[in-house]
Amino acid sequence: MISSTANPRVKNISLLQKKTKERKKQGLFVIEGRKMLEEVLRDAPDAVAEIYVTEAYLEVPSQREVLKDTNYEVVTENVMKAMAETVEPQGVIAAVRMPKYEMSQVLRKENAVWIALEDLRDPGNLGTILRTAEAAGVAGIVLSAGSVDIYNPKVIRSTMGAIFRIPHFYVEDFRTELRHFKDVGACLYAAHLSGTQFYDEPDYMGRSVILIGNEANGLSDEVAEMADCLVKIPMEGKAESLNAAVAAALFVYEAYRKRRTLR
Amino acid sequence: MISSTANPRVKNISLLQKKTKERKKQGLFVIEGRKMLEEVLRDAPDAVAEIYVTEAYLEVPSQREVLKDTNYEVVTENVMKAMAETVEPQGVIAAVRMPKYEMSQVLRKENAVWIALEDLRDPGNLGTILRTAEAAGVAGIVLSAGSVDIYNPKVIRSTMGAIFRIPHFYVEDFRTELRHFKDVGACLYAAHLSGTQFYDEPDYMGRSVILIGNEANGLSDEVAEMADCLVKIPMEGKAESLNAAVAAALFVYEAYRKRRTLR
Repeated sequence: MISSTANPRVKNISLLQKKTKERKKQGLFVIEGRKMLEEVLRDAPDAVAEIYVTEAYLEVPSQREVLKDTNYEVVTENVMKAMAETVEPQGVIAAVRMPKYEMSQVLRKENAVWIALEDLRDPGNLGTILRTAEAAGVAGIVLSAGSVDIYNPKVIRSTMGAIFRIPHFYVEDFRTELRHFKDVGACLYAAHLSGTQFYDEPDYMGRSVILIGNEANGLSDEVAEMADCLVKIPMEGKAESLNAAVAAALFVYEAYRKRRTLR
Repeated sequence: MISSTANPRVKNISLLQKKTKERKKQGLFVIEGRKMLEEVLRDAPDAVAEIYVTEAYLEVPSQREVLKDTNYEVVTENVMKAMAETVEPQGVIAAVRMPKYEMSQVLRKENAVWIALEDLRDPGNLGTILRTAEAAGVAGIVLSAGSVDIYNPKVIRSTMGAIFRIPHFYVEDFRTELRHFKDVGACLYAAHLSGTQFYDEPDYMGRSVILIGNEANGLSDEVAEMADCLVKIPMEGKAESLNAAVAAALFVYEAYRKRRTLR
């Protein structure tokens, strides 16, 4: 049992919670809570690197049962608190290996819907976009290098497990990557004030990429210019824009609706 | 110029930022930043009770211009920091009177779409719902007494000004209030696992109330039973639910789409 918060493994978990750079260097990120652990053990069991639990957590038979084929380390409540980012830790924390996806493989998928995020900054928005994307059958997410770290604990919490199931890629050169999509015939959609049709007019039937920009500044002109189709989400009142996760949801669910009802 | 953080007015702003109870008692809430101040001065100028600015804020001519018909108090940077909830305060803070709406007046509005929130807890979700509601032309929001405080600074920030433009009501007895809507012929829609049609099937043409439940537990059985129409939002993959603000957005934008395209 680990009882000291000075234990190097405990300190490393804290570091992984706080530092994007450390997560990248070690290729690891941290998940908290029973539900997240059960999802990763179900969806990507080989990705689990380290598990830490409290004695109280192990006392619940169903929770102990889930851990039966794993190596876990018991820690004191104090150590758990030191490792946790949440205010009321649920008694289990794990270090998980980052998934690796092959972009070339992913591009081959026909008639899929993609989301491409340019410098999205808010962790809650990114988590919500991943969660919504899975529900709407989106094939994957492309993120510009300036976007928030997908392995940030706040993102992880709001994805509700979708992080293990939706392929995602950070790309150094966002526009070059978008060009690869265009090369395989994908149609790029951007929400834009100068849009000529509403978001519910396209049929989204071929390969489709939904472009979503930064919360404060929207899409850069250079990226908006690459879009094949500038569309508008209609707005009443004095509303000037929608939350980025809401805009993404309206697009991907409209594409999903078309695919459900027109096919 | 106020230069002491011990000044009672400064202390009162901090109190209003932190305590729901104080906000209720005084009938005041706090807004931060140039954009929010400009919106309230445009949309509800009589609601502004107190304005505090830094000297640096006043040095920008366009910012000084907006303040010309108002009474404001200059404070030091230190005092501004003490009053602000944001990490990098923008140099202006105001205390604003809570708007009052008359439910009986509001019920009279024909063919309107409403959102009713049962124990919604996350401030970011509530702010996003208000912002989306305005954009989709929603007539107003009803909140159960157990919902998060709409005047919480985090809600205010994420509404993007919609708080001044969307009528909203906290109700002691949520189900009695829903019955009032039914009495005037409104149709109550609830997202529910046992839904028999998809969210895009109803035409939402009459008075419509969209019911959205708590983030962790959804709608209570008692409220779900009052719904005239249980609908499903289709989901792929292993997604079990959507973020509450995303679910609300899909509903109100679908209703808005029907109203735009079918009328």
